[in-house]
Amino acid sequence: MRRAVELSKANRLINHGPTVLVSSAHGGRRNVMAAAWSMPVEFTPPRVAVVIDKSTFTRELVLASGRFALNLPCRAQADLAYTVGSVSGKGAEDSTRADKFARYGIEAFDGPLLGLPLVAGCVAWLECRLIPEPHAQEAYDTFFGEVVSAQADARVFDAGRWSFRADNADLHTLHHLGAGLFAVPAQTVQAELLP
Amino acid sequence: MRRAVELSKANRLINHGPTVLVSSAHGGRRNVMAAAWSMPVEFTPPRVAVVIDKSTFTRELVLASGRFALNLPCRAQADLAYTVGSVSGKGAEDSTRADKFARYGIEAFDGPLLGLPLVAGCVAWLECRLIPEPHAQEAYDTFFGEVVSAQADARVFDAGRWSFRADNADLHTLHHLGAGLFAVPAQTVQAELLP
Repeated sequence: MRRAVELSKANRLINHGPTVLVSSAHGGRRNVMAAAWSMPVEFTPPRVAVVIDKSTFTRELVLASGRFALNLPCRAQADLAYTVGSVSGKGAEDSTRADKFARYGIEAFDGPLLGLPLVAGCVAWLECRLIPEPHAQEAYDTFFGEVVSAQADARVFDAGRWSFRADNADLHTLHHLGAGLFAVPAQTVQAELLP
Repeated sequence: MRRAVELSKANRLINHGPTVLVSSAHGGRRNVMAAAWSMPVEFTPPRVAVVIDKSTFTRELVLASGRFALNLPCRAQADLAYTVGSVSGKGAEDSTRADKFARYGIEAFDGPLLGLPLVAGCVAWLECRLIPEPHAQEAYDTFFGEVVSAQADARVFDAGRWSFRADNADLHTLHHLGAGLFAVPAQTVQAELLP
């Protein structure tokens, strides 16, 4: 049920603050990590920011390749999201055993524009070109990127909007509260403008 | 039920991606706007990033004062959050009528460290000193700040953790899906590490 999302609506995928999985690849190596800290920064062109710590293998791959993908894990993947956020991919430089995709049997498919490894079973995927900002990267671990492809699972994101319902609860996004406890957007409320 | 939150745990307040209200004041003028785009960027010292568009009155006040506060509205304030995110405070330069606090009868109290106007009825409050980053502000509308005071409503944030339950549903945070539709973290799921 994977469908392309218009780039002008890509920011809606992360507007509500979900935890994301950052996937990356370079020179035959690849990795995936969880990141609770990301946000859109611009509608057009669609741009995002994500915090990638200096200790991570992902950071090496992103800097070397100039690209990264944001994958949005869903409720059915809570254990996976927590695990790849807790275990480092460091060491994957020298051993295929350390590749988190392989270690945890994570199925990946190629991103449509940049060929990045995207995580199957997620509910949205954004491929991004890194916008190099050495100072922000160094001082705040903040990486800016331009979204160049966006896709979502039509069972839960349709007509440019998230549709979280009781009948698709397994596909709801994850919002990390800490220590593996995730909130899920199980209810919605429609606000009205005050007079 | 407002209680101080240790600064080392301040980032947990926004780790799960809630919509925030940015409040600011300078020279007798004040304003409040909604922002869906914010995130922590560092644990210690606690630092955050928030996107503040060039068209906003808030941006003028933040740049002039070097400070801003993040207030986390709750489900009971959905109409308020949507409204202050849809109506500009521009014009408040010359008229008290345009002050959104006054216009919508929003009760405010003084922040404990910086004296910023904090929004009553919210469930968490962070006072921040702006870390001037002219390039990030100009290129990405991204403002970095250091959190210098943090408070939360103990009915929903206790012992350093959010506690979203059915019996405090009105106090759940808001996560904007678009057009005034907010998701609320009405359920949680505890993940386990994969072997």
